[in-house]
Amino acid sequence: MTRTLSELAEYLNARLEGDGNTVIKGVAGLENGGPGHLVFAENNKNLSLAEKSGASAVILPLESPGVRKPLLRVEKPRLAFARAAELFAPDRLEGKGIHSTAVIAADVEIGSGAVIHPHVVVEAGVKIGENVKIGAGVFIGRNCVLGPETRIYPGAKVLANTEIGRSCLIQSGAVLGSEGFGFVQDENGHLRMPQLGKVLIEDEVEIGANTVIDRGALGPTVVGAGSKIDSQVIISHNVCLGKECLVVSQSGIAGSSILGNRVRLGGQVGITDHVRVGDDIMIGAKSGVSKDILETGTYFGIPAMPARKAFRIQAGLRNFDKLREQLKELEEKLKVLEEGKKD
Amino acid sequence: MTRTLSELAEYLNARLEGDGNTVIKGVAGLENGGPGHLVFAENNKNLSLAEKSGASAVILPLESPGVRKPLLRVEKPRLAFARAAELFAPDRLEGKGIHSTAVIAADVEIGSGAVIHPHVVVEAGVKIGENVKIGAGVFIGRNCVLGPETRIYPGAKVLANTEIGRSCLIQSGAVLGSEGFGFVQDENGHLRMPQLGKVLIEDEVEIGANTVIDRGALGPTVVGAGSKIDSQVIISHNVCLGKECLVVSQSGIAGSSILGNRVRLGGQVGITDHVRVGDDIMIGAKSGVSKDILETGTYFGIPAMPARKAFRIQAGLRNFDKLREQLKELEEKLKVLEEGKKD
Amino acid sequence: MTRTLSELAEYLNARLEGDGNTVIKGVAGLENGGPGHLVFAENNKNLSLAEKSGASAVILPLESPGVRKPLLRVEKPRLAFARAAELFAPDRLEGKGIHSTAVIAADVEIGSGAVIHPHVVVEAGVKIGENVKIGAGVFIGRNCVLGPETRIYPGAKVLANTEIGRSCLIQSGAVLGSEGFGFVQDENGHLRMPQLGKVLIEDEVEIGANTVIDRGALGPTVVGAGSKIDSQVIISHNVCLGKECLVVSQSGIAGSSILGNRVRLGGQVGITDHVRVGDDIMIGAKSGVSKDILETGTYFGIPAMPARKAFRIQAGLRNFDKLREQLKELEEKLKVLEEGKKD
Repeated sequence: MTRTLSELAEYLNARLEGDGNTVIKGVAGLENGGPGHLVFAENNKNLSLAEKSGASAVILPLESPGVRKPLLRVEKPRLAFARAAELFAPDRLEGKGIHSTAVIAADVEIGSGAVIHPHVVVEAGVKIGENVKIGAGVFIGRNCVLGPETRIYPGAKVLANTEIGRSCLIQSGAVLGSEGFGFVQDENGHLRMPQLGKVLIEDEVEIGANTVIDRGALGPTVVGAGSKIDSQVIISHNVCLGKECLVVSQSGIAGSSILGNRVRLGGQVGITDHVRVGDDIMIGAKSGVSKDILETGTYFGIPAMPARKAFRIQAGLRNFDKLREQLKELEEKLKVLEEGKKD
Repeated sequence: MTRTLSELAEYLNARLEGDGNTVIKGVAGLENGGPGHLVFAENNKNLSLAEKSGASAVILPLESPGVRKPLLRVEKPRLAFARAAELFAPDRLEGKGIHSTAVIAADVEIGSGAVIHPHVVVEAGVKIGENVKIGAGVFIGRNCVLGPETRIYPGAKVLANTEIGRSCLIQSGAVLGSEGFGFVQDENGHLRMPQLGKVLIEDEVEIGANTVIDRGALGPTVVGAGSKIDSQVIISHNVCLGKECLVVSQSGIAGSSILGNRVRLGGQVGITDHVRVGDDIMIGAKSGVSKDILETGTYFGIPAMPARKAFRIQAGLRNFDKLREQLKELEEKLKVLEEGKKD
Repeated sequence: MTRTLSELAEYLNARLEGDGNTVIKGVAGLENGGPGHLVFAENNKNLSLAEKSGASAVILPLESPGVRKPLLRVEKPRLAFARAAELFAPDRLEGKGIHSTAVIAADVEIGSGAVIHPHVVVEAGVKIGENVKIGAGVFIGRNCVLGPETRIYPGAKVLANTEIGRSCLIQSGAVLGSEGFGFVQDENGHLRMPQLGKVLIEDEVEIGANTVIDRGALGPTVVGAGSKIDSQVIISHNVCLGKECLVVSQSGIAGSSILGNRVRLGGQVGITDHVRVGDDIMIGAKSGVSKDILETGTYFGIPAMPARKAFRIQAGLRNFDKLREQLKELEEKLKVLEEGKKD
């Protein structure tokens, strides 16, 4: 597929400078652009890279100096680039209809335009929306609902009663609807507390590779609309994650915790069970949240505290030796004084 | 399926108060119970929730005040609730016999009542016990043994020579029998040390979603009876985990470490290789165990130390700034004294 | 398969002492060796274990005291043992040709000796080298390249455009080519930045179970030749990992970071995005690297610092209480002096 630069200018609502007939076949990074590629430069220090690039055209901010190539000028070059890239992006689940090796229960409802790849299993009672694409080897358990335009990459497991909204992406190896870590002690050891709730994924959510989302114990586990979860995250039973949150890889949220909207967790963060994290809160990588955090801001550390405080302690620790030396010095001086006094 | 409250009273060994003919069709949480639901309240502050609940009956402690609904009184309400919930819990691996798309070696022994779902692969020499249920897309490698009543959720991989006991649950995406991280340096780089041991899972063990258990290098890797492992845990080659342990998500136990019975690890804990952790030891979330811990108790921190000590240090750190101010103040006072002496 | 000790001596370039006709059928650990087994002892304290072992022969260092069994003497016993073990190791992907349930696109090139197990899916444009073995349920996406002798364990997912070199091992549940965590804020929330790059795995690389390697955003994500990645690791988009690195379980490397050759990461390490880690650097378990580390050495801590410094701070913290007591004592002494002066 190709587009002319004029067509792209219109699509991106950009100001065209130079030859609108330039043919674009794809996007590229500043370092590896070639003929037919569109690149972008967000700031002036990338202008010379853009100039040297083999790319055929450049997306630039409205007001920056130009380069000697056809240009698309926009307010937000990275955003325009993302939209252009989307136009040329390959369909990772390209295919047609339902593959003959898929095993699909008789009563499954399948919307028009849906694609189901080889070795998929879809159990009874499932509803699959329009244009849903299900990759090879995916499992969809009983009574799941997949909203229109949702894509599920090869090998993801969507267990019974999971409901997924519109335009979601579930990546390979993700498990939705696993049974959470709920046990009761009886005289013979740990007795499983049956996990009877479901997983509820709202619209435009992304779930990364090998991420695990437990079903609720009784009520649901919820991931709010527009939230994006990276790979190898665990979201435990009955967690409620708000809208437009970002959760980076290898973070874990323990049972029944409630996170607000636009919460951001860095990588390898841990959040203990039954706590609340308010709206617009950012938790730095590797932090451990052990109690409620409600005031908007950036937090860091184990346990997590306001980042400024955490960094001050870290800085102090780096001079820990000096502190001890100071103390020793003081002790010696004091001794001298005390002895002087005895004289 | 439904039960009358009288039947449940008998099953749970509970004291019935009120109408024994009340029909129960399932369990629910206090907030979302409706007609036909059984709920439970463990303590008095939940009594008013139980009262307001739409549920048809309530499990209460023996001695608490009552509510205006039919009651089941027991010593341990949560435990009784778990047992009742189990009665009504759906079979997540419902099915019959062996699906036609399963690929099963000719010599596999399959016990009566076993269920094998679509696209399963079972290699030669495998023994499958009675009433074992194997979910869609599961792989069972050569010479594995699956004890009776064991359930394996869709997409788990059980590699060659793994032995699993009776009534275990292996969740989706779990990998049992991977090759551990064993290499020897030779003149050309890292040479793999072949991993020839097996994985041995005793009775009533649960393995969470996407958890990985390496086979032993020479001897076995062992998970003791009744132990429950959460999701995304790694148990490395030759680890020996005792009985009735609880290991929360994203924890890792490095090679050859030996953990006792009833050990509990919080989330994201790391245990280094070749250490021992004694019976009844609790390690707090995010801790790092870098040497033997043998004395029963609760430990926390990186490196892990007795929790009381770790929390005291944490509290101290929070006042780190004050410490430095104190020191500065002392220095100034001392200076005054020293100067005074010179006069 | 069996070998005589003479044959093994020649294969391992070892000095034979004792009966060269001893028949060896496998290797074992010192504790569990029996008739027909070859064991090894690296140091003198293991000699008595070797003596007591039921094994038929022992690999010993060139100069150690002997034991009363046939011996193979070599400079590096562990290395010789690894090579002997390799001879006897079972082929975990044993099989022949292409299984009838595999779904393979018409234009896939398959080298001689390749083995493809049940329920594998191979999409269009893929090139499979000689003697490649692909386990059950593996997915190979469009235009992937698998170098000769490479093995892929059951259930791994190799997504479109991934290139894997010669003699690699990809373990179960690994995902190569997932879409990294790249979003741009627009007026409606987080818009995905299409991930158009690929994954490039060089020769003799190992990827552990359930490890995730994102494709590059525009350029590639690279794992250098001879590097070994343990289980549940995440390597994010555009990371470049050098040659012969070792990355232990549950570590994560964030986007665009560049690691040199022979870098070693302990378990649960986190490396932030866009940093550089130089050659021959070792990062201790659970550390967090938040900025460039270029000087060769061992680092530890959150944030990572030279290990010696980190351990000194840790030791200091363990005596934190004492520090505060010292300070208090000083304050009191000073008060006495000050009051004395007033007199």
